Amino acid sequence: MKLADIGEFALIQKLKEIAERTNPPAALVMGIGDDAAAWKSEPGLTLASTDCLVEGVHFTMETTNWYDLGWKSLAVNLSDIAAMGGRARYALVTLGLPRTVEVEGIMQLYSGMAELGKKHGVSIVGGDTSAASCIFINLSIIGNSSEKIMTRTSARPGDKVAISGYLGVAAAGWKLLQQDHLQNQDSPLIRAFLKPQPRLDTGELLLAEGVKTAIDISDGLIADLAHVCRQSKVSATIQTSQLLLHSEATKLFGKHTALEMALTGGEDYELLFCAEEPVINRVKARSNVSISIIGEITDDKRGNVNLVNEDGSAMILNAAGWQHFA
Amino acid sequence: MKLADIGEFALIQKLKEIAERTNPPAALVMGIGDDAAAWKSEPGLTLASTDCLVEGVHFTMETTNWYDLGWKSLAVNLSDIAAMGGRARYALVTLGLPRTVEVEGIMQLYSGMAELGKKHGVSIVGGDTSAASCIFINLSIIGNSSEKIMTRTSARPGDKVAISGYLGVAAAGWKLLQQDHLQNQDSPLIRAFLKPQPRLDTGELLLAEGVKTAIDISDGLIADLAHVCRQSKVSATIQTSQLLLHSEATKLFGKHTALEMALTGGEDYELLFCAEEPVINRVKARSNVSISIIGEITDDKRGNVNLVNEDGSAMILNAAGWQHFA
Repeated sequence: MKLADIGEFALIQKLKEIAERTNPPAALVMGIGDDAAAWKSEPGLTLASTDCLVEGVHFTMETTNWYDLGWKSLAVNLSDIAAMGGRARYALVTLGLPRTVEVEGIMQLYSGMAELGKKHGVSIVGGDTSAASCIFINLSIIGNSSEKIMTRTSARPGDKVAISGYLGVAAAGWKLLQQDHLQNQDSPLIRAFLKPQPRLDTGELLLAEGVKTAIDISDGLIADLAHVCRQSKVSATIQTSQLLLHSEATKLFGKHTALEMALTGGEDYELLFCAEEPVINRVKARSNVSISIIGEITDDKRGNVNLVNEDGSAMILNAAGWQHFA
Repeated sequence: MKLADIGEFALIQKLKEIAERTNPPAALVMGIGDDAAAWKSEPGLTLASTDCLVEGVHFTMETTNWYDLGWKSLAVNLSDIAAMGGRARYALVTLGLPRTVEVEGIMQLYSGMAELGKKHGVSIVGGDTSAASCIFINLSIIGNSSEKIMTRTSARPGDKVAISGYLGVAAAGWKLLQQDHLQNQDSPLIRAFLKPQPRLDTGELLLAEGVKTAIDISDGLIADLAHVCRQSKVSATIQTSQLLLHSEATKLFGKHTALEMALTGGEDYELLFCAEEPVINRVKARSNVSISIIGEITDDKRGNVNLVNEDGSAMILNAAGWQHFA
């Protein structure tokens, strides 16, 4: 059954039923089905972010299934709230869809979103659907933070630079998928690319322990750290030997390529943060994901990211992360 | 200069400068440039809505300019907040853009949004930009309401049905544009289609005067009233002679076609609301746009919209509004 067979309003009814599996909280006054969603405001700060996945740019239907695509489209948005240290609460979902898309696929897409939403207490409360010549999925997330947030502008010379988890894993997974679309989808590398885990708990922990500076790694370590450095008017030095590389990535692609993926790969949705070392040590003691110190912030105001090899020599890289339109 | 010439980050910097003309309120803690926007929460209810315009579906670049497109993309979203009786506050803007688009066009798009935002106290505080094969513009609006909202579920038998302004004007403008793309763009019909005025003041007035039921007319009078009737489990009877038709539309297309446009045209972004007659009379006395009573709610639970001619006979129409994918 294709979208053209059932039309917009019947589709919305089906999606509403799946969205309602996300267990709308008691604070929700109006969910899907009216002109706008409405809920009782929480005191403190409201956070809001939006992120879009576009067919042929962020994904292809040859290398993902609808369920994973739904999961990922919510995950990349939750990651932005995680980077601020906030709690994600409500999602608005816009779908641009060709008329020939199967209804079942869109229901799977929504199921993937609903599953991840349920895991993190996020409810799908509204959206828009439109005919379009290519598939796109835009989500907006609204969340809360009690009083403070982490930003990109607060890194200070002497801060250590730390990350959660492994880097370059999603890039390795994407490379595998490009080599062979029928790859074993149970590979941890491919799972990391298709179904990232947003670090909401880690973000809340960082904020609670006094971290002031964080960003999620979507464009790649160097590109995202450069955002922090430029916006904080500092520079950073990274000890490349301190980066945790995934054993599967080094086994399949060699240490050199795995390191390059960790530096520039993007889409890992781990958190990069900067703080004084005792703060990071407190985080380490309480975190349920690995936390590695990989470098430090320096007082060069030009916003540079300097890479240092194990022997202390400077490492030079060509590519420095993903940028649209370029 | 095309997007491919300057890349994503330089584009974002240019758009940030235009967005900041929307005068971010004191409550804003973080605008464009971090992982998420953040602001001090307002007490009461938070409202959120999202709406997308897609090239080839909602607009063509042959019949609009970038500035008007920006205006309209915000206007259609503000209209959803108006229909709830809320105040719109913050906007997130997602742009899907081919690499060959002119940077100047996108800046004009943002200027159109910023201009309308400024008029209604709405700030652009975040967004996402992505390469895409077709142009799409998705906005999410977050607003507030002190305590109550208007919904689609609260119409009661005996309520009168009323609308703000004229209907069918945008449809007449669209027809003119289809006939001749080089039409005089000063025509009030074409302006209504390209640059609709969201009825935020009217929405707030309705809520303040005790109206409980409202919807904005985006799909067409019959289609949108049918949403209200189905969701409220009532029916409605419309006296078609009570509909205000625009003199320009009747002059150009004749009374019959102008009436058909008013009933099914869509995109007028006027407010349709239901309330007891004394409530509507209080609204009329305070409103700065015309308010017409056009029919009433009946106790037939099937959600039908019945049309009655001036002589009391039933009017039968074929088309009943716009639906995607169908």
